[in-house]
Amino acid sequence: MPHTIIGVMGPGEQASSATMSLAYELGQQIAQAGWVLLTGGRNAGVMAAASQGAQSAGGLTIGILPDQDMHQMSPNIDIPIITGMGHARNVINVLSSQVIIACGIGLGTTTEVAFALKTQTPVIFLGVEPQVHIWFEQLAHRAIPQTLLASEAMQQAQTILRLGSSGRFSTLAGDSTPF
Amino acid sequence: MPHTIIGVMGPGEQASSATMSLAYELGQQIAQAGWVLLTGGRNAGVMAAASQGAQSAGGLTIGILPDQDMHQMSPNIDIPIITGMGHARNVINVLSSQVIIACGIGLGTTTEVAFALKTQTPVIFLGVEPQVHIWFEQLAHRAIPQTLLASEAMQQAQTILRLGSSGRFSTLAGDSTPF
Amino acid sequence: MPHTIIGVMGPGEQASSATMSLAYELGQQIAQAGWVLLTGGRNAGVMAAASQGAQSAGGLTIGILPDQDMHQMSPNIDIPIITGMGHARNVINVLSSQVIIACGIGLGTTTEVAFALKTQTPVIFLGVEPQVHIWFEQLAHRAIPQTLLASEAMQQAQTILRLGSSGRFSTLAGDSTPF
Amino acid sequence: MPHTIIGVMGPGEQASSATMSLAYELGQQIAQAGWVLLTGGRNAGVMAAASQGAQSAGGLTIGILPDQDMHQMSPNIDIPIITGMGHARNVINVLSSQVIIACGIGLGTTTEVAFALKTQTPVIFLGVEPQVHIWFEQLAHRAIPQTLLASEAMQQAQTILRLGSSGRFSTLAGDSTPF
Repeated sequence: MPHTIIGVMGPGEQASSATMSLAYELGQQIAQAGWVLLTGGRNAGVMAAASQGAQSAGGLTIGILPDQDMHQMSPNIDIPIITGMGHARNVINVLSSQVIIACGIGLGTTTEVAFALKTQTPVIFLGVEPQVHIWFEQLAHRAIPQTLLASEAMQQAQTILRLGSSGRFSTLAGDSTPF
Repeated sequence: MPHTIIGVMGPGEQASSATMSLAYELGQQIAQAGWVLLTGGRNAGVMAAASQGAQSAGGLTIGILPDQDMHQMSPNIDIPIITGMGHARNVINVLSSQVIIACGIGLGTTTEVAFALKTQTPVIFLGVEPQVHIWFEQLAHRAIPQTLLASEAMQQAQTILRLGSSGRFSTLAGDSTPF
Repeated sequence: MPHTIIGVMGPGEQASSATMSLAYELGQQIAQAGWVLLTGGRNAGVMAAASQGAQSAGGLTIGILPDQDMHQMSPNIDIPIITGMGHARNVINVLSSQVIIACGIGLGTTTEVAFALKTQTPVIFLGVEPQVHIWFEQLAHRAIPQTLLASEAMQQAQTILRLGSSGRFSTLAGDSTPF
Repeated sequence: MPHTIIGVMGPGEQASSATMSLAYELGQQIAQAGWVLLTGGRNAGVMAAASQGAQSAGGLTIGILPDQDMHQMSPNIDIPIITGMGHARNVINVLSSQVIIACGIGLGTTTEVAFALKTQTPVIFLGVEPQVHIWFEQLAHRAIPQTLLASEAMQQAQTILRLGSSGRFSTLAGDSTPF
């Protein structure tokens, strides 16, 4: 069984201290739940804070890097995936996550939330302004859970996973004997 | 410190039983060395056999999937990275690996070896015909290690890692305090 | 000198008739200005209407297709670029355009506007609700031209091109003699 | 009807003068046949020479660029497609071409020929060593046309197009009335 991977997206260099605290706490709780954290992997903002939080609680962290190397990488990434594809890696962030938690909002996060809604990836808004939340609900014709607390975002993620996430994560492969 | 990730590439549906045995053994030894295995993630050929071998020895396995879902995935993948980018994911296979071991050769493997040589990623040929080996050496103007034994490929990989791999894997990030 | 390429982005299947009329008219005027039209290439909504408009006025049309084939393509595409990269092709739509005109807004358009703002690609909003316009201006800390008329969007694009667009489009290559 | 796009692939900085002469001649003849030339777009080797040849005969040239900008672009590109995806753009080169002509061989060309054989894109070898030709035929279990003359490569391409190329290029879209 593959690990449960939760994506945490949010602003990079523009993230406020409050948003980074939230991201750190969220990273910790994701690790404590036994889930693997996935971020955009750079050493900035929500990506860095969430990865640091997850590692502080003994969790595993994946970073999907935009560059062809690790120069911009957060020191708290266990599994660097080096894409060399620039902003196109945002699509991989979304497709590889069973749930996306948007912790604050920036231009990159906006693309990730929109890709998630487009690919039926469950999205949770954490600490995002009501107007942004409302606008995405209108655009997607769908209710999107929101909260101001990391612990509540965790509960919402748990509910989503219990109900069964996107069909993308079901496998046809039944057994383990290639030969 | 990020984990050491070793990529094992090779034919899918076209792989011979002998090549799959080699891949299984190689996967086991990669896990025993404490390294993380990376493959193209599909439930076929070298990808599947190496992942099964690594998991049998308690190792961690990454699969870089070409599709938008997990339908073709090997059941022995711990960390599925879902790219939705088709063959372009071969570039990610290469960039994310500190060493590439080509275990047999197919059309996809050919692209991965060529991308590796183009991006200064160390390549080891395991169980590959001499003519293929010679041709890639001519094309890359460089000696490429080759062997018929998984254990020898492991020693070659260890030597490469000790000497220090591609500059791609050095980080500028010195410390762990984003905030 | 490369052609001047203008990207027209907007909703696909969800586009209203009014939005498609606007897109058709805009495509016509882009062709009449001597520019090349770039869209996401599918046979739906703004992509299809703008391409039809441009061809009706004798213009050249590029379609950046998400699939590995041409099955979803608009019949009004002259230059199909087949990416096989799914939603990641939205980044190519943006990077290849000297100006992006968002004609209406959908989830895909949202990613394209956000990528444009992130990569310093000039954006013009045509027929987009004021709240969307305001929100993107806040997110990007930048004024974004908007209008309800295709002809005015064309004037705004002309002004942007006259002032000189993104540095992305300057070339170092001075002459035409590779050998 | 979309234009007929022919991809010319080959070495960049490593190309010999003889190979570049061949590429220039081939580019001219592609333009004279009324086809559109597609290359990797950089100002080096076969890409540059073929584009210069095509423009000299009044043809249209597409360049699929690896970078996020036009700094490395050949001055003979009419339609720059800026991907920002590095080597992954090689897949787009192949998928967008109805026929690939490999004019000489380098590491990048090797990936393009292998991707072409993998995606049922017809390949023609022009001025490529017999051992390379033989090896790819063995790998693909298929005969691959080869020649030393640009004019003969053109005839082979014409034959392939007459017989009908890959199913990738058939469209379902019957008519031109999106609204």
